[in-house]
Amino acid sequence: MPQPLPEALIAELTAILGERFTQNPVICAQHGHDESHFPDAPPQGVAFLTHRDEAVAVVRACSRHRVPMIPFGAGSSLEGHVLAPQGGIALDVTGMNRILAIEPENLLAVVEPGVTRTQLNGTLKDTGLFFPIDPGADATLGGMTATRASGTNAVRYGTMRENVLAIEAVLADGTLIRTGTKARKSSAGYDLTRLLVGSEGTLALFTAITVRLHPLPEAIAAAVCPFRTIGEAVHTVIEAIQLGIPLARVEFLDERAMAAINRYSHTHYPVAPTLFFEFHGSASAVAEQVAAIQELASGHGGTQFLWADKPEERTELWTARHKAYFACLALRPGCRGITTDVCVPIARLAEALLEARQLIDASGLLAPILGHVGDGNFHTLILIDPNNPEEVARAEALNEAIVATALRLEGTCTGEHGIGLGKRHFLRREMGEEAMSVMRAIKAALDPHHLFNPGKIVDENSRELFSPNIL
Amino acid sequence: MPQPLPEALIAELTAILGERFTQNPVICAQHGHDESHFPDAPPQGVAFLTHRDEAVAVVRACSRHRVPMIPFGAGSSLEGHVLAPQGGIALDVTGMNRILAIEPENLLAVVEPGVTRTQLNGTLKDTGLFFPIDPGADATLGGMTATRASGTNAVRYGTMRENVLAIEAVLADGTLIRTGTKARKSSAGYDLTRLLVGSEGTLALFTAITVRLHPLPEAIAAAVCPFRTIGEAVHTVIEAIQLGIPLARVEFLDERAMAAINRYSHTHYPVAPTLFFEFHGSASAVAEQVAAIQELASGHGGTQFLWADKPEERTELWTARHKAYFACLALRPGCRGITTDVCVPIARLAEALLEARQLIDASGLLAPILGHVGDGNFHTLILIDPNNPEEVARAEALNEAIVATALRLEGTCTGEHGIGLGKRHFLRREMGEEAMSVMRAIKAALDPHHLFNPGKIVDENSRELFSPNIL
Repeated sequence: MPQPLPEALIAELTAILGERFTQNPVICAQHGHDESHFPDAPPQGVAFLTHRDEAVAVVRACSRHRVPMIPFGAGSSLEGHVLAPQGGIALDVTGMNRILAIEPENLLAVVEPGVTRTQLNGTLKDTGLFFPIDPGADATLGGMTATRASGTNAVRYGTMRENVLAIEAVLADGTLIRTGTKARKSSAGYDLTRLLVGSEGTLALFTAITVRLHPLPEAIAAAVCPFRTIGEAVHTVIEAIQLGIPLARVEFLDERAMAAINRYSHTHYPVAPTLFFEFHGSASAVAEQVAAIQELASGHGGTQFLWADKPEERTELWTARHKAYFACLALRPGCRGITTDVCVPIARLAEALLEARQLIDASGLLAPILGHVGDGNFHTLILIDPNNPEEVARAEALNEAIVATALRLEGTCTGEHGIGLGKRHFLRREMGEEAMSVMRAIKAALDPHHLFNPGKIVDENSRELFSPNIL
Repeated sequence: MPQPLPEALIAELTAILGERFTQNPVICAQHGHDESHFPDAPPQGVAFLTHRDEAVAVVRACSRHRVPMIPFGAGSSLEGHVLAPQGGIALDVTGMNRILAIEPENLLAVVEPGVTRTQLNGTLKDTGLFFPIDPGADATLGGMTATRASGTNAVRYGTMRENVLAIEAVLADGTLIRTGTKARKSSAGYDLTRLLVGSEGTLALFTAITVRLHPLPEAIAAAVCPFRTIGEAVHTVIEAIQLGIPLARVEFLDERAMAAINRYSHTHYPVAPTLFFEFHGSASAVAEQVAAIQELASGHGGTQFLWADKPEERTELWTARHKAYFACLALRPGCRGITTDVCVPIARLAEALLEARQLIDASGLLAPILGHVGDGNFHTLILIDPNNPEEVARAEALNEAIVATALRLEGTCTGEHGIGLGKRHFLRREMGEEAMSVMRAIKAALDPHHLFNPGKIVDENSRELFSPNIL
């Protein structure tokens, strides 16, 4: 158990935020919970921030008192990022949700970290531009930046790594930094922007994020195509990527995931290994991409393209896909999900997926497969009863085995969900002790007292840090 | 003057490398010189490395003796990156030029740092793939990674930031790390790959680099189009980018640069503000892009498209463009160039360029303008007599003024050349003291004795570090 919060800190936070600082147990409980299967771990207080200046003042106060701080957005993390196993203060940025600038002529926007992707895209509606990164959940841009999120569009538009131009952030000592400019490229010193993208709240609290926007395509086509086998579906994708066909989205769902979304979203797709495609471009470019994909797919037995031509049909299709996570969870009421997130070099994708499927079948667990296969990234959603230790252990063994396969195939343990609490040992295995030491040295250089989101990514044994002894 | 090299270090390096370690003054002088205007600053010795294991052993030896190390590739830096103003050992990696793996099916290659881009593309010839980053000079991949290079193709294919998947590198203490995998995306911890990309030899010596490859386009078209004014040319580019026309290359040269290349490359282009275009895609996609650009250009008075349809015509066109740097230098025999490298948000490009032109004209200096304008990045090549202090001072004032304009327009002081020796004060102005402190903290965490390329990027006063007192 963490020490109680210092009374002096409570007084300071109350002076800064008034009622927007709270220790209300219900609100704390809401902030000790995300979409992962980890046990809830509430913070000791929640600071609802509405402005950069407040963020700086709150971080300074927590820093002086050596109290942990956990940035909190939509709470849609799948890896326990927002949990507070060492106590401390959740820094809730959902009230920092102003869009600070939209510059259509520069193809960029500047947003506060609590802005969500649908909020941003809603605001962009009349500009002819959009923000493409789409992890499914209506996450905040702050959270997406922190986890280096990607999702369905990344195969064409890149991930947050490619789409964040600059970050304004508060460091652990309360210093405010800006990491970049509005220029599209730069060779100006160490890439602090990319260092903060994916830092999972462990290095800084973001107060503003400059993101790239993209012109809306002139034409869009979307289709669903079932295959006889997983291998046939995946080989279609591998060949499309190798040929450089500029797919905007290509999503794989196995027959179990398809059955789940049919049931959950009342759709009637064939229950088979399936690819969801989207094509962006001029009308003729889209027609050309479609023809190329149809040829590739038919070479692998995928002939039954179900087209979604109208915008509302496309919305239905992608809504069904986006709800796949909850659709799978609904296969087993009361369950929680352990989501694997490996990503492999594209040519190894079929091997990785088929091996994952064999491992699932051997485990006896229910675990639909779905993923952003154009990037070599796929998820298995292992449905478990969190109160059944034997089942949890079996699921963790399955997770381990799938990650071991991905590492053997020269891939990564996480394509987009991040390390959080649950993948720290995978990270060590993937990077090696030497690179882990570099990450730890960076953490120590920027946050020497381990105040930002302790226990995540690099911290495996930092519970003792939240102790008055260190003061 | 630095201390003489310790005899023990000389003995150790000789034991490791034999004759491939040398203190021959001619060879040292060759390694104290690049394409910048800075005075030569030779290292005290040169270590010609041929293998990772040697690299580790040499770094360990230099580290033990606290002697600076300066990674050295093609020597094509424009910012003094390879100079050794504090002495030390140049780590010449041109002998580490093996292509370790080409995996066409995974769209990647693994190379040693001394491999040059033309060497890599030569090896790829029969694969249907290419490595797009093209800074003009036949730089090494190690040097390109170190400066976060980009060049003519970056508008379509990104910079080294987007095209390096993973790096193997030796840290200052001789530890070998690997920063990533062969997966195309990852959320696995801090982005050490992007931290090393652009680190200019100040954090680590690269021993292997995994880069992305891209499918050769089915069709390529290239053209040169003159305009009546700089503004008309640049507005054509701005609109093309805003519309999302996927230009593969779009280069601007002002009439002075065009006159220089005509003279140097015996070409006969109109002497006018000119855009060089290249279009990649399927035949119909290229035709569509060409039509779209012609329409935009003609709206701005650019109607005279000179097409290079045959491969040899395209080669001539791009060779002329690539030689523009030397062509401009040849305008004034015996001169050196001070190259500005600002990059601004795309909508501010016309303003930045026209202001640069006014500043040049007011300075009385000869300074052709050219650049990768699709990224908002352009260069002025200020031709100076390095022995004329008044002229050098005037050129530096012009450089300052052009950078000040770019920063005012929310751009960066360097789009692709890096900071090196000459832009350290610009970096401080661009980033602010707070972000500079973060860079310094990272440098101190990874290279506490300032052994890697001291005096560059973050080190403004580290000469004293190369002193036996610190041992």
